[in-house]
Amino acid sequence: MVLTREAMPTTPSEARKLFREGSWTQDTLGICNGYTNANLVIVPRDLAYDFLLFCQRNPKPCPVLEVLDEGDPTVRVLADEADIRTDLPRYRVFVRGELVDEPTDIGEYWRSDLVTFLFGCSGTFASALDNAGIKVRLGIDGEKPGFGVYRTNIPTVPAGRLRGPMVVSMRGVRSDLVSRAVVVTSRFPNHHGSPVHVGDPAAIGITDLSTPDWGAGPVELLPDEAPVFWACGVTPQEVALESKPDLMITHSPIHMFISDIPAEQQASS
Amino acid sequence: MVLTREAMPTTPSEARKLFREGSWTQDTLGICNGYTNANLVIVPRDLAYDFLLFCQRNPKPCPVLEVLDEGDPTVRVLADEADIRTDLPRYRVFVRGELVDEPTDIGEYWRSDLVTFLFGCSGTFASALDNAGIKVRLGIDGEKPGFGVYRTNIPTVPAGRLRGPMVVSMRGVRSDLVSRAVVVTSRFPNHHGSPVHVGDPAAIGITDLSTPDWGAGPVELLPDEAPVFWACGVTPQEVALESKPDLMITHSPIHMFISDIPAEQQASS
Repeated sequence: MVLTREAMPTTPSEARKLFREGSWTQDTLGICNGYTNANLVIVPRDLAYDFLLFCQRNPKPCPVLEVLDEGDPTVRVLADEADIRTDLPRYRVFVRGELVDEPTDIGEYWRSDLVTFLFGCSGTFASALDNAGIKVRLGIDGEKPGFGVYRTNIPTVPAGRLRGPMVVSMRGVRSDLVSRAVVVTSRFPNHHGSPVHVGDPAAIGITDLSTPDWGAGPVELLPDEAPVFWACGVTPQEVALESKPDLMITHSPIHMFISDIPAEQQASS
Repeated sequence: MVLTREAMPTTPSEARKLFREGSWTQDTLGICNGYTNANLVIVPRDLAYDFLLFCQRNPKPCPVLEVLDEGDPTVRVLADEADIRTDLPRYRVFVRGELVDEPTDIGEYWRSDLVTFLFGCSGTFASALDNAGIKVRLGIDGEKPGFGVYRTNIPTVPAGRLRGPMVVSMRGVRSDLVSRAVVVTSRFPNHHGSPVHVGDPAAIGITDLSTPDWGAGPVELLPDEAPVFWACGVTPQEVALESKPDLMITHSPIHMFISDIPAEQQASS
C-alpha cells in the first residue's frame, strides 16, 4: 500500500511509528499540523560543549529544546520515549565535512559517546501562522511553493571548533500581513521566533529566490507578497560542511522530528 | 570620602570602575537603573558542559547571556571589555560545597581553565516594572522592603553532576497590577521572564515571607499586595551547596554585574 500525505496519521506517535518502520521516508511538510517540530544534531561527547555553546551564541537558528544524556537515544521531554535513531523519516551523516550518507535510520552509526540535541523548528509556528490567516504555499500539492530554505552570507558567532553561515527559511507573506507574521512568530522564541530579515534577498546573499538550496522546488512569490526570512535549523549542517568535525548526524532538511507536544504549548509566557 | 548610593554614577562603566577599585563593595540595588544586570557563575572547564546543560534545562533561573572562552576573563558582549575578576562589587567562592570566601575581587582564584557564564537577572526588568507603574520597595532607604530572595522546594532539572532547588525573588505587587507585572516581565525571557508562581508562599516551600534568605532585610507586604515570585540567578549557588563541585565562583547575591547594554535592548522581539 502506498501512503499518501493526506492519509498520514495526525497523531505524532502514530506518524513516528511509520517513520520507524520505514513506511514513510519523504519530508514531513504538512504532517501532524499543530504539533511541535524539532531539528536534530548528534555529535560525539568531545564536541558536545562546543555545539551547546554554539547554540547559546546563536539562539535564533539553534534554540535548544532537549539534550539527551551521553549515549542515551531516548527522547523523554519532547515525546513519550521516542527512539532518536529511528523515529525520523530521513537523516544525514557528515564525516569530516562531507555528507556521506542519507539513511532512514542511524542504528549502524550509533555509539555510546553520542550526544543528541533537539532544537526548535519553524514547522512549530506553521499552524499559528495558518490560524492567523497567513497561508503559506508549501508546494506539496503540485503548486509552486512560496516557501524555501537558503544559505545566506549572515555569519554565525563561532564557538570552539564550530563556525559557518546562517541558513534561513523564506515564506512569501502578503505585504499587509507582514506585521502580523512578525508578531505571531515572536511568540515562539524557542522556534526561531521573529524573522531575521524582511525584504531584499540579495542583502543576505541570496541571489535567486526561485531556486532554494533546500525545499519542495522552484519557489514563486505572488506579486503582492514580500519575502520574509526566519533563521533555520539547517544551519548546523552548513557548520558541519565548513568546520569539518569528525562526525555530525542530523535530520535531512524538512524531514523533522515530530514531538507529542502541541505547538501552542511552546509559545512564550 | 564615603560614597552614598545616591551619589553613585549612573553610567555602568563608571560604576564598574568604582567596583574595580574597591570603592563600592555593597549591593547594586538601585545602581545604574535601566541597564542590563547579570548573574555570574565561573567553573573549571571540566564542569562547563554540565553547567551549560544545567542552564539549558533550567532556562527560567539560568538564561545564559554570554559565555567567555576558557581562561578568558574579558566580557565583550555585555560590556566594552570589562574584567570579570574585578568589575563586580563582591563575589562568592564555593569549594566542595562550602562557601569559603566572599572577596571583592577574585584575582587570587583565577586559573587558565576557568569558564565564565553571565546570565539574566531580574534587575534588568526593574526599570520596566517601575516605568509601568509597579513600584517595588527595595528597602534601600530605611523602609521595609517588599522584595526578597528565597530558597524554594521547586526542584531544578539535574544536568550531569549538578542538581539543587530553585531560588526565587519575590516582589509584593498590588493585586490589580499583577497581570501587568506578568505581561511586562514576559517581554524579558532572558531575564527570568514571567513569574514562576503567584500567591501562596507555602506552596513552594517558603514558610515565612518576612525573613528572606537573601535581601535587604525583614520583608513586609502591604495589605493590598500579592506575593509574586520570579526565578532567580542565585539558584546555582544552591546547586553549589548541594552538588559540591570542586570550585564554583559566583557574584554575591544582589551584588550584580552591570552591563553597558540598556535593559530595553534585552526585551524579546
